[in-house]
Amino acid sequence: MEAFRRVAVIGVGLIGGSFAMALRRAGACRHVVGAGRDPANIRRAIELGVIDSASADPAEAVKDADLVLVAAPVAQFPRIFAAIAPALAPDALVADAGSTKQDVVAAARAHLGGAVARFVPSHPIAGAERSGVTAAKVDLLDGRRVVLTPLQENSAASVERVSAAWAACGARVSRMTPAEHDAVLAAVSHLPHLLSYALVHEFAGRANSAQLFGLAAGGFRDFTRIASSHPEMWRDICVANRGPLLAELDRYAAKLAALRPLVESGDGAALERVFGEARAARERWLAGDFEA
Amino acid sequence: MEAFRRVAVIGVGLIGGSFAMALRRAGACRHVVGAGRDPANIRRAIELGVIDSASADPAEAVKDADLVLVAAPVAQFPRIFAAIAPALAPDALVADAGSTKQDVVAAARAHLGGAVARFVPSHPIAGAERSGVTAAKVDLLDGRRVVLTPLQENSAASVERVSAAWAACGARVSRMTPAEHDAVLAAVSHLPHLLSYALVHEFAGRANSAQLFGLAAGGFRDFTRIASSHPEMWRDICVANRGPLLAELDRYAAKLAALRPLVESGDGAALERVFGEARAARERWLAGDFEA
Repeated sequence: MEAFRRVAVIGVGLIGGSFAMALRRAGACRHVVGAGRDPANIRRAIELGVIDSASADPAEAVKDADLVLVAAPVAQFPRIFAAIAPALAPDALVADAGSTKQDVVAAARAHLGGAVARFVPSHPIAGAERSGVTAAKVDLLDGRRVVLTPLQENSAASVERVSAAWAACGARVSRMTPAEHDAVLAAVSHLPHLLSYALVHEFAGRANSAQLFGLAAGGFRDFTRIASSHPEMWRDICVANRGPLLAELDRYAAKLAALRPLVESGDGAALERVFGEARAARERWLAGDFEA
Repeated sequence: MEAFRRVAVIGVGLIGGSFAMALRRAGACRHVVGAGRDPANIRRAIELGVIDSASADPAEAVKDADLVLVAAPVAQFPRIFAAIAPALAPDALVADAGSTKQDVVAAARAHLGGAVARFVPSHPIAGAERSGVTAAKVDLLDGRRVVLTPLQENSAASVERVSAAWAACGARVSRMTPAEHDAVLAAVSHLPHLLSYALVHEFAGRANSAQLFGLAAGGFRDFTRIASSHPEMWRDICVANRGPLLAELDRYAAKLAALRPLVESGDGAALERVFGEARAARERWLAGDFEA
């Protein structure tokens, strides 16, 4: 692909930093400018060579950029879009790394003005429980899925060029509608995070929490890894996507309610069937049977 | 410690196999005989050098053994205890690796006869989602917790010698009552397994399961790792420990019900507080703040 002259990354954290590193690895950008709320993180990004220059001001950062990536917790998108809209170059493409899409699209339509035509919503599915530029890795996006939810306002050329940028980072790009994206991610990502936080919080609040944590082992560690995720980021996701998340939470509560009598009555055959079917489904998933 | 002459391992899987390997590494046993239901697994255990000899019959295997470890799914304990009781040497110590303790103690009292005085219940907290002797590792127990729940019938010497055997395997041994053990493990182990199986099973049953699994990523992978666990073993645990597990399931359902209105109303501040407190507790746990 033709290299971008100047890429602005608003939010140089795990995703924004990895995007910059991977684009550079691909020879797909000449200069990366970063902006963000945390001056120490931005300084570190320069020290690490993840970005070439920095600006405290998003509007300043996007000047003359031909590609802008907004990679911040989703509640900040309205403010960021409003700040950068007047400063965007007429040909600048805008993409994002927001974990939810319907709210991001609404923010873009409300605050980007005419530039919304060149805003291609995207979600790289490559989270981790660590955040900040020190968590960024050049290969974070290799083989990961990026979902684009193009807008009717987008030109085919804009969508193609943003898609090519993610592909240059090593990602596998697919497309769906914002509503479809938010429903699927509520199930496979947002709900597990809420469930994991809930379990740790439940135990942390008990009188015998030291005893509980003292005997917690590997199963608990992996089940709760995502409870070490960034609270602000997950606050924003849960608020932004609360409709689909609530639907998934209710379905899960109904699932537990359906399993409860099997436990209560000691129905081993039924429990073994559920466990066996779950394991078989997970093994198929691990084997790649559900790859698009 | 003085080495055991002959150790019988009933159930040469992940735990039984690792116990045998670690005892041998410590020079704490001269001969290991294995018994189990699956002839292919037992043959593999001999090929791998995990056991020295094998018998299809648990009663045959325990003859002349001075230490017996029963490491099978807990529903098999009554049958195994009944089978080995008449064949145990008068000085033989018996230990187990059962994931629950109240039911195992009841089975021992019902079926071991006088040998119950030399049965020291124990639970090595070192599970994994893989099973069978090929999953066994010489260092599986290194640094892991083993909980003993000694019986009033046990002599101090019996408890000490079983404790020393686990310590020789590299484990950190502590003691509690069977009821206390089962309550704590219901919370930090049995409930997460049930929750993880439930989530995978829920998605596997949906019309769009391929789409859901197709976008599931690292968070889902770790949250559901334990849903790849052995269905029979977890069936037995859920049935044996259904009282404490049900209590934990109800508390967790209440926790989700308490979080639901925070999601529904989009109460970001309250959600961020919960997530932050959970993350802080987990970080303390990872830092070793709850080590006994």
